[in-house]
Amino acid sequence: MRLVVIGGVAAGTKAASRARRLDPDLEITIYQEEAETSISECGLPYLLSGVVESRSDLIARTPEDFAGKDIEVLVRHRVEKISAEDKKLTVENLTTGERFEDSYDRLIISTGATANLPPIDGADLDGVFTLRFLRDTDAIQEYIKKHSSRKAAVIGGGYIGLEVAENLKELGMEVAIVEVVDRVANAYGPEVSKKVAEHLKEKGVSVDTCERVEEMVGQDGRVRAIRFNGEELEAELVVFGIGIKPCVGLAEDAGAKIGATGAIQVDKYLRTNLPDVWAAGDCAESTDLVTGEASWAPLGDTANQMGRVAGTNAARNSSDDEALEFPGVLGTGVFKVFDLRVAKTGLSAEAAENAGFEVVTASVDAGDTAGYYPGDGKTFVKLIADGATGRLLGAEVAGRKADKYVDICATAIWGRLSYPDLVNLDLAYAPPFGPVLSPVISAASVLANKIETANEGVRAAE
Amino acid sequence: MRLVVIGGVAAGTKAASRARRLDPDLEITIYQEEAETSISECGLPYLLSGVVESRSDLIARTPEDFAGKDIEVLVRHRVEKISAEDKKLTVENLTTGERFEDSYDRLIISTGATANLPPIDGADLDGVFTLRFLRDTDAIQEYIKKHSSRKAAVIGGGYIGLEVAENLKELGMEVAIVEVVDRVANAYGPEVSKKVAEHLKEKGVSVDTCERVEEMVGQDGRVRAIRFNGEELEAELVVFGIGIKPCVGLAEDAGAKIGATGAIQVDKYLRTNLPDVWAAGDCAESTDLVTGEASWAPLGDTANQMGRVAGTNAARNSSDDEALEFPGVLGTGVFKVFDLRVAKTGLSAEAAENAGFEVVTASVDAGDTAGYYPGDGKTFVKLIADGATGRLLGAEVAGRKADKYVDICATAIWGRLSYPDLVNLDLAYAPPFGPVLSPVISAASVLANKIETANEGVRAAE
Repeated sequence: MRLVVIGGVAAGTKAASRARRLDPDLEITIYQEEAETSISECGLPYLLSGVVESRSDLIARTPEDFAGKDIEVLVRHRVEKISAEDKKLTVENLTTGERFEDSYDRLIISTGATANLPPIDGADLDGVFTLRFLRDTDAIQEYIKKHSSRKAAVIGGGYIGLEVAENLKELGMEVAIVEVVDRVANAYGPEVSKKVAEHLKEKGVSVDTCERVEEMVGQDGRVRAIRFNGEELEAELVVFGIGIKPCVGLAEDAGAKIGATGAIQVDKYLRTNLPDVWAAGDCAESTDLVTGEASWAPLGDTANQMGRVAGTNAARNSSDDEALEFPGVLGTGVFKVFDLRVAKTGLSAEAAENAGFEVVTASVDAGDTAGYYPGDGKTFVKLIADGATGRLLGAEVAGRKADKYVDICATAIWGRLSYPDLVNLDLAYAPPFGPVLSPVISAASVLANKIETANEGVRAAE
Repeated sequence: MRLVVIGGVAAGTKAASRARRLDPDLEITIYQEEAETSISECGLPYLLSGVVESRSDLIARTPEDFAGKDIEVLVRHRVEKISAEDKKLTVENLTTGERFEDSYDRLIISTGATANLPPIDGADLDGVFTLRFLRDTDAIQEYIKKHSSRKAAVIGGGYIGLEVAENLKELGMEVAIVEVVDRVANAYGPEVSKKVAEHLKEKGVSVDTCERVEEMVGQDGRVRAIRFNGEELEAELVVFGIGIKPCVGLAEDAGAKIGATGAIQVDKYLRTNLPDVWAAGDCAESTDLVTGEASWAPLGDTANQMGRVAGTNAARNSSDDEALEFPGVLGTGVFKVFDLRVAKTGLSAEAAENAGFEVVTASVDAGDTAGYYPGDGKTFVKLIADGATGRLLGAEVAGRKADKYVDICATAIWGRLSYPDLVNLDLAYAPPFGPVLSPVISAASVLANKIETANEGVRAAE
């Protein structure tokens, strides 16, 4: 029995390892286009500044490590075609240019995602980059070193843009962020966006919003400025962080259904519509557990978790009632930009309204330790709930313990908890760890007051 | 309509404030035996060492603050008798010795708890203390100053004992902990107890376990040693941290039912069996949400949450279907001792076995940041689950992010999540915040492997 895995980063390697664990007799091959496997792509921005010291630190496991588990890994190999009917693959060895055929009994597609680069003039100039692969950081680092670049423009104010901006600034560069919509971090509500924008300014990063970059302006083949709003902004280095898109061409050509999100459609067992073919990671869809709709959540932890499920099911090829389910995602995320830590889970107020909920929100600025204990800091917590049922739909947090508070909210949403649960939640308290009531509980109390007051108003009016 | 609250610390003051918020016309009086109100009792150990600088830092609100909300607070007043039939109280003014009668329409009992002191020889010597009230830290601090005490014995290795030991050590004292059972922190499993004991030794605190203190040895009315196992250990200061007991005498004399835990029995609305009398905080029982049994959880955050519910229900005096419920507790707790942070929620393996569950546990020692990101630390996570249903029953964590990980587990237990939920939980990930999969998820994966392997074994045997 032969399992082939296409893609050797998070989902693919996890799936292969899991399959090996469950079935020692399975023949397992991973085809990986890049030169390295198991790359911690989320760490790439930190390699730019040297916070992560060496590129090898970001390679969790090598082909040799996998060989030790009897998993064959072929790097610099691109699968060019899947013939789903006869379970055959056409593969190109990118080093030699040689093409060959392979076959599978079971196949896992984990082809990942790639960075968006808009088709604008000058996008092909030297010094214009995206940041998605280890080779991108290699190229950016080499470019900065070679040209002693001092001025950078980062296009896009989302996770990647903000992390790249921070790390280029840490290198001593002048950094400008240019964002097309009206605010940075726009996956969040306006309160958080404002905090992020203010913090960037404090740290000396300029931010232009509502600006669509029209052109990269070059000189001698190298970028020297970006143009927007009719003006030029000097930039010796440009990094685009305007999102990513799933790599689905190979699967689509083979007849795999692509969902409305643009990623490969899978059922709850991560099966595609092709026989004995699963998909996992950034190339695959999942389900939003709040709305129940298809969702695309290209994040390293999710890819890892999907890989576990796909690897299990591909190894066992169990009947439905024994197969493992991947329940879905909440859209939980966290990032740090300089000294500000920001996190979210579930739906934003806007997304919740769009999904048809009767949205009630409550926000607090609360201390994050007992007021009398040294080291007090402030945390912003915003809860988004359904006024009709009281159910928690989303949360946004800014502050040094953002990751802690958002994980409570993520777990609460997973458990479909409502505000009366949150108000009474039995969380860990001692003075060195937080105020007597967690900021999450304080925010839930504000939510309770709002919802109950509204309900009393309704009863009084009846 | 007159609401009287007996006790003015966490539950009492919260209940009164909540009642005022809901009903501006209610007449509200708090009787408080101590000289201060709203004392952050959990901060008392930190006052000893000066980590908390001033005793006034631990007083969240004064009688004057409450007067501003039209809540009368009478400090140094002890309620001596409740006549439940005619809703009358007998009160003593402890300053003047004067006794008077008062009456109530609704009554909240929040008389708290008091520290245990065993009836052993020498317990009344000068220099022998418990630590429960602000006056206790006043007395300990004064005693240390007056006698320049250098050697301390702490009897009891639970939360309070450990926190007192740390803070006395921070003062430069020699500190010995003497614990009657075979390990410190015995609310936890043996793995955590061992970590705590080792850390105490590293920090130069001696620990004797399995030792019952037989006598305090005095000289000129002052303690100079403690005797156990036939030997004397020199101690110029002794602090007992051997637990607390609920103050229920007043309620019991009035006819309130006392539960098997020794605390006042209440229904889910925190009503006692006496008409229009609620109880909240350390004097009252609650429900263990894992076992469904009555439970006694005398903690500051729980007291605060119970106070909110009792205050709401006393103010509204609603019918059952409109009254607020206090759902119960999980026994979540956290403490720090020197540089070690330890937390738990739900049942220990032992408690789960005693409750009749088919216990499966899984432990990991995992990194608490991405391996390549600076500042990596190790975290121990132990999950306790029901093998029959997969449901999470409890968790114990040791490490610098213990509070974060235990709050995830507490919320998961509250939501009755099982290990397949935990394995797939969508928590916040970015390299500065943790490894790609939270240690909680890693531990859940180990749990999944154990339970699934066991189930396969069962199927294979069938």
